[in-house]
Amino acid sequence: MSQAPMQLYGYFRSSAAYRVRIALALKGLAYESRPVNLRTGEHAFPEYQAVNPQCLVPTLVTFAHSLTQSLAIIEYLEEIHPEPPLLPRQPLERARVRALALTVACDIHPINNLRVTHYLADPLDQDEAVRQRWSQHWIGLGFEAIERELAASAFTGRFCHGDEPGLADLCLIPQVYNARRVAAPLDAYPTILRIDAACRQHPAFQAARPEAQPDAPPELRN
Amino acid sequence: MSQAPMQLYGYFRSSAAYRVRIALALKGLAYESRPVNLRTGEHAFPEYQAVNPQCLVPTLVTFAHSLTQSLAIIEYLEEIHPEPPLLPRQPLERARVRALALTVACDIHPINNLRVTHYLADPLDQDEAVRQRWSQHWIGLGFEAIERELAASAFTGRFCHGDEPGLADLCLIPQVYNARRVAAPLDAYPTILRIDAACRQHPAFQAARPEAQPDAPPELRN
Repeated sequence: MSQAPMQLYGYFRSSAAYRVRIALALKGLAYESRPVNLRTGEHAFPEYQAVNPQCLVPTLVTFAHSLTQSLAIIEYLEEIHPEPPLLPRQPLERARVRALALTVACDIHPINNLRVTHYLADPLDQDEAVRQRWSQHWIGLGFEAIERELAASAFTGRFCHGDEPGLADLCLIPQVYNARRVAAPLDAYPTILRIDAACRQHPAFQAARPEAQPDAPPELRN
Repeated sequence: MSQAPMQLYGYFRSSAAYRVRIALALKGLAYESRPVNLRTGEHAFPEYQAVNPQCLVPTLVTFAHSLTQSLAIIEYLEEIHPEPPLLPRQPLERARVRALALTVACDIHPINNLRVTHYLADPLDQDEAVRQRWSQHWIGLGFEAIERELAASAFTGRFCHGDEPGLADLCLIPQVYNARRVAAPLDAYPTILRIDAACRQHPAFQAARPEAQPDAPPELRN
């Protein structure tokens, strides 16, 4: 029986959408890409609000259901398409991987999101240098904790947990991409950099990268 | 065989610790409370950094493992103590509940966290009125989306999903508590207020509330 196609509403540079693209690619799931341009405000149009009342990307539409929040979408994909797994089997190990993922998804990314840095600019009237230091600050705090955990744990392998990529990697790599965009110093995080390099060689991460998306501007593509 | 006791490192007012307290109470799990005073900076002491390298609360220590990130801890508790369940059985419904939880845990709470409002004060030199409007702004955006989903969905019952409390409620109620502390207007969210009132009558939510914790100052306790 053929599977109803899924539609992923996203934006090439949204790191939350980027996570879901990696998960779909790792699991070999086909989907239609539905770009929503955050720069021109398409996410606030009524058409998109009908799809996602929070007006954020990504949204995965499957069997006429709108699923929101990247980690909820990925846990759903893991439950209905368990192979290859994005989480280990043992509860304590699953907790480790989810904690690494949530460190990015709760404690780094939302504070540096476009809507937050926009608010810093207007109404708070903070200039670009202040906004850049803001992003660098929260990335630094989070990456320091992640690096310490990755460097110290015997669970760390070629990827964040063992030798296959999973939930922690698919959160970490989009955040490294963002870190480079705001020129956050990364030299103090050798394990993160090593895992980032391993992921860049993986076909699923290559397919999901911002520059490979249909809504990336031509000058960024390849 | 008796269960090794768990230790929960938290702070009475931390809404992430509050979530885990509700989960433990809903599942009827005993634990030792280990207060970490965020106001006096105890979270940055080396003793606590050894427990949680991110220096955030909560941390749940179980079988000599330190588990961090409230949602990772709660998913772990759900996996090893499945009754009563905090998530529904069907994957699409689980995705709905997780999305509601993550809307609080990613898109409202971290932006208003103590460390972020501290940064707004120093180095950004924003006064208390600006910091209060900041918190109200992000709470408003998130609650608007949550209210719309709760009001529109046939899954909403006495609680966020059906007639038993679960993962979405235990994220929402600490956020309502925070919203009141920053005087965020709540009149526009009647469904959230109705669910908050239902939770306040539930013994697990009563046991977990900030005022009932051993580290709450005497003037706040009952």
